[in-house]
Amino acid sequence: MLSKNNIKLIKSLEHKKYRNQQGLFVVEGVKNAQEFLNSAYELSHLFTIDTNFSLDDTSKISYISYDELKKISFLKTPNVVLALFKVPVKQCIIKDGLLVGLDSINDPGNLGTIIRLCDWFGIQQLICSDDTVDCYNQKVVQATMGSLTRVNVVYTDLKEFLKTYQNPIYGTFMNGNSVYSSNLTSNGIVIMGNEANGISSEIEKLISCKISIPSYNDTHETESLNVATATAIVLSEFKRR
Amino acid sequence: MLSKNNIKLIKSLEHKKYRNQQGLFVVEGVKNAQEFLNSAYELSHLFTIDTNFSLDDTSKISYISYDELKKISFLKTPNVVLALFKVPVKQCIIKDGLLVGLDSINDPGNLGTIIRLCDWFGIQQLICSDDTVDCYNQKVVQATMGSLTRVNVVYTDLKEFLKTYQNPIYGTFMNGNSVYSSNLTSNGIVIMGNEANGISSEIEKLISCKISIPSYNDTHETESLNVATATAIVLSEFKRR
Repeated sequence: MLSKNNIKLIKSLEHKKYRNQQGLFVVEGVKNAQEFLNSAYELSHLFTIDTNFSLDDTSKISYISYDELKKISFLKTPNVVLALFKVPVKQCIIKDGLLVGLDSINDPGNLGTIIRLCDWFGIQQLICSDDTVDCYNQKVVQATMGSLTRVNVVYTDLKEFLKTYQNPIYGTFMNGNSVYSSNLTSNGIVIMGNEANGISSEIEKLISCKISIPSYNDTHETESLNVATATAIVLSEFKRR
Repeated sequence: MLSKNNIKLIKSLEHKKYRNQQGLFVVEGVKNAQEFLNSAYELSHLFTIDTNFSLDDTSKISYISYDELKKISFLKTPNVVLALFKVPVKQCIIKDGLLVGLDSINDPGNLGTIIRLCDWFGIQQLICSDDTVDCYNQKVVQATMGSLTRVNVVYTDLKEFLKTYQNPIYGTFMNGNSVYSSNLTSNGIVIMGNEANGISSEIEKLISCKISIPSYNDTHETESLNVATATAIVLSEFKRR
């Protein structure tokens, strides 16, 4: 049985303010929940309509009806399991290798795709400016397809972080050097900018290597690539061998 | 003034059946509409709240109120202009160079992103299986940011098309050869498959070169890349120089 207070609590986790207040976020779907259960994330409670689903700690599982699941789900079609995990305290732990930095990314789908890309290309750490959309937003969690359990996503003052960062700082600009002919080092950070405004001027000052993806459209009418597809191309170019 | 019949007609264009019946599709926003006005697409009628917006053929423009625009818009925030253009009859006109083929892509956002990528990389023709989502779906039109005016999108029996196609046929598979070390020719077609099921078995038989994007994640737990980001990486690899 699901109490009114539980429903209210879970629905409130749509908002960052309440996620922070409660220290909880929502993971939906069997596969997604399994990935989080097998990770370092700590389960708070799991609700499921599947009576065969079990946990070692039986106090952390509640069997509910599909009608109840519909009341707490954020999905159009609720998917068997809705789990609450604790928001971890994340710190920047890796300084070597290739990192990705995000300067004010707003769209949950874009952040989710970028986390998946980091996972695919073996990038273990994503440094987000404090005003980048929260990675525990349920839309981001769903879009990452479990990748969030493998990429260390850190929120920080990006400007201050870059000021003390020792390796090359790459940034994508319309007028940068072609990414295909730039010297792409194995240690460094690639900064991707806001969907509408690109990289902010205060971050731009800290970029040591401006890169761009050349357009092959002769008319040059195409504005720009979506930030997630641009990230895909840039990371592929850094990692190809 | 907007008649009830006009409102009903425009709202019906949400559905492919009515777009085909009426031979019309919706373009919203000043910039997007301008791109279509400057292209070979034929305007049927334009509705705007901007009394400074003008057309040579004054019979094709109606000035409406913002409340009226809200009634016909498909956007959360209506954007000054909503135009109806005629659905053109598109034929496969280009056989040389690099083409992209889509096997049953369902998501409007993915198709929109792929059309934008084709435009960016100078690919003039996109061959879609008959069951791929309609490119005149308003979500696709909005996602393409005008690129639809520069890429020839053709719907056809993809299997029959490929049977008579003379150049190499590339397809992305989990077990293909690395795209980074494959011989990527300047004439050919790259087939991208359905979001959930990949390339269908009947199309797979016609593929002459199976390629894949290697994952750099040691645990290999990441399922796959989204089809639009995979297209970005593959096209970048074909076109890099």
